[in-house]
Amino acid sequence: MQIDAYAILEKVRTQKPLVHHLTNWVTIYDCANIVKVLGASPVMAHAPEEVAEMSAIASALVLNIGTLTTDLVESMKIAAKSANRKGIPVILDVCGAGATEFRDDKSFELLNETRIDVIKGNASEVARIAGEDVRTKGVDGGAVGRDVTEVAVELARGRECVVVITGETDVVTDGAETYLVRNGNPMMSGIVGTGCMAASVIGTFCAVESDLARAAASGLSCFEIAAELAVEGCPGPGTFKERLFDCVHSLNREQVEGMQRIEIG
Amino acid sequence: MQIDAYAILEKVRTQKPLVHHLTNWVTIYDCANIVKVLGASPVMAHAPEEVAEMSAIASALVLNIGTLTTDLVESMKIAAKSANRKGIPVILDVCGAGATEFRDDKSFELLNETRIDVIKGNASEVARIAGEDVRTKGVDGGAVGRDVTEVAVELARGRECVVVITGETDVVTDGAETYLVRNGNPMMSGIVGTGCMAASVIGTFCAVESDLARAAASGLSCFEIAAELAVEGCPGPGTFKERLFDCVHSLNREQVEGMQRIEIG
Amino acid sequence: MQIDAYAILEKVRTQKPLVHHLTNWVTIYDCANIVKVLGASPVMAHAPEEVAEMSAIASALVLNIGTLTTDLVESMKIAAKSANRKGIPVILDVCGAGATEFRDDKSFELLNETRIDVIKGNASEVARIAGEDVRTKGVDGGAVGRDVTEVAVELARGRECVVVITGETDVVTDGAETYLVRNGNPMMSGIVGTGCMAASVIGTFCAVESDLARAAASGLSCFEIAAELAVEGCPGPGTFKERLFDCVHSLNREQVEGMQRIEIG
Repeated sequence: MQIDAYAILEKVRTQKPLVHHLTNWVTIYDCANIVKVLGASPVMAHAPEEVAEMSAIASALVLNIGTLTTDLVESMKIAAKSANRKGIPVILDVCGAGATEFRDDKSFELLNETRIDVIKGNASEVARIAGEDVRTKGVDGGAVGRDVTEVAVELARGRECVVVITGETDVVTDGAETYLVRNGNPMMSGIVGTGCMAASVIGTFCAVESDLARAAASGLSCFEIAAELAVEGCPGPGTFKERLFDCVHSLNREQVEGMQRIEIG
Repeated sequence: MQIDAYAILEKVRTQKPLVHHLTNWVTIYDCANIVKVLGASPVMAHAPEEVAEMSAIASALVLNIGTLTTDLVESMKIAAKSANRKGIPVILDVCGAGATEFRDDKSFELLNETRIDVIKGNASEVARIAGEDVRTKGVDGGAVGRDVTEVAVELARGRECVVVITGETDVVTDGAETYLVRNGNPMMSGIVGTGCMAASVIGTFCAVESDLARAAASGLSCFEIAAELAVEGCPGPGTFKERLFDCVHSLNREQVEGMQRIEIG
Repeated sequence: MQIDAYAILEKVRTQKPLVHHLTNWVTIYDCANIVKVLGASPVMAHAPEEVAEMSAIASALVLNIGTLTTDLVESMKIAAKSANRKGIPVILDVCGAGATEFRDDKSFELLNETRIDVIKGNASEVARIAGEDVRTKGVDGGAVGRDVTEVAVELARGRECVVVITGETDVVTDGAETYLVRNGNPMMSGIVGTGCMAASVIGTFCAVESDLARAAASGLSCFEIAAELAVEGCPGPGTFKERLFDCVHSLNREQVEGMQRIEIG
């Protein structure tokens, strides 16, 4: 059965869910703006005094450890526990896991002390979370010895959550069903921010669709179709990024249906 | 008497005032850059050890609670008190007031412990500060039961300050004179950052013009005229934002005089 | 002997060095993205628990005090000491030195407690670090009474490091050899971020070339040639910035060799 990714995008545009973020200081604008141009409402709030209340009025929570500190992770835990109580999906971008021990430790703290519904990262980040002995080069992916789909499925089963590994082909799995998303283009990894935005897109789609693997695969496909449209005749990465926002905003059914490349793995 | 908004923009470009900000981490670049392309000098500094000194060399202070923490608000108070001593205008963007108790409490602390010259927000944010029982959806406006001009005038009189409520029509009032700014377009609310930039524009105009209501209305009108120019033939929200900076930078007397829509309420 | 700036850019693109930053929250995205479009890998990390480890896997460290706090400077010291132990170059952008006592004090702490390999700033910032009695207007340059080349050479000899003063003509010196870089255009100072990006470019070039003065001059020349290309037919500062990323990304040998203006002082 083929996924109707566009139908979920339409739900985003109609329901305009509030998506609460505790994210990094590098791409925080991009994360907010991609949610906005999808037609939803982003909110960024990290004070420990208010995160529980903010998550409680939101429809999804996106966590990203790109520029983590101990205090920020403590706020993330409070927000995630509030999201868990309300039953809204929590997405964790394990940005930079495998680069330092601190990132690994804090990722495991989040995973062990709260319920994370979607773990998202590039191959070496997710492999590290799955217990593999890999090194991430800062926030850029490093080599992984094993088949990434296998790593994803095992982790999804072990943690009973959805796992997303982004790359040339994205792997999305809940341990039972696996989707391979083959949209996108190399320009996406030529700028800073597409990886973080992908997590925000996933959060936004998960806010309106309870089958989280399906939501994540649909979100990634829509986002990457927009990237394919944005790169046409594009002079370079600076212009590309602005066009990416344009193309996400104007994405229509014809484009998504004609270009969607989601395979069931 | 019609306002000469362009004359105030010319003073900004000639005097190049320094505008000190303690703002949020989402749109901090946009706030700085909009001040820059207006022809003025932005500076962002939040360490408690230096904010008093920085405000003392500035011509206006802009505070924005978009990603507030207790520590950041303490720095805001130190900066505001320094600005008050020097007699420069202090603008407070009550970003997200009405979304959490923490934002409400901290807004009232700032309003009660320092002199705020301009309170700025969308309808539900300002209504909350005025004591109405409303809810803000994160940082996006919620419904307000009363006439917003009435709310603004009452708050301006009660707090003896200028109140700005942004929206399709912006309301600017000092309790005596009220201006309705009817410039702008829907694309402005389709991206993240225009609201925060509007506060920075107001701060920049207030830095060179002592009639703060007139300065605020003029700044909003200029900014929104630039937005109207930027949207012409624009493919989407990403491109729109870059063009907005272009159009603010190149705004001329003919454009402002021909397009200005400020009504005296 | 003429510098082959393009050869160093090629080394950046081939070696893809990891460049660790502790920088300000205003231009943090731009700093990361300029490193990325040069073909290298940026990473931003500031938690005291991980900065030593992150610097130890990097090839250069860039520090920028634009929005410093006491805690952030403590993390900078830990990172710099780790970089010093590993022997990778440390670049310090003394952003806003001369504006407040706090910025001066913290700059001197960094310079005195760690080994800084490249000091970079505009004229009044660097003059302040050299002990001159000047005032910086926030983060925008103020007047300097003395010849800036003299100031740079003296400081370079006193601190035994490379000194870079950016301006219409950039001065780069290690105290023995001095380079004057005459590329660039006025649009660069019309937007926020080019100064900070320049420090990141210098860091990236220093990551692959051990003659740090030559690396810094080459990096600035390449960056500013891209700016000259970006400004052609450009409608304004918003569009300019995106094109700057485009032009850095596509910079080729013909462009650099034809436009390079580095004089030996």
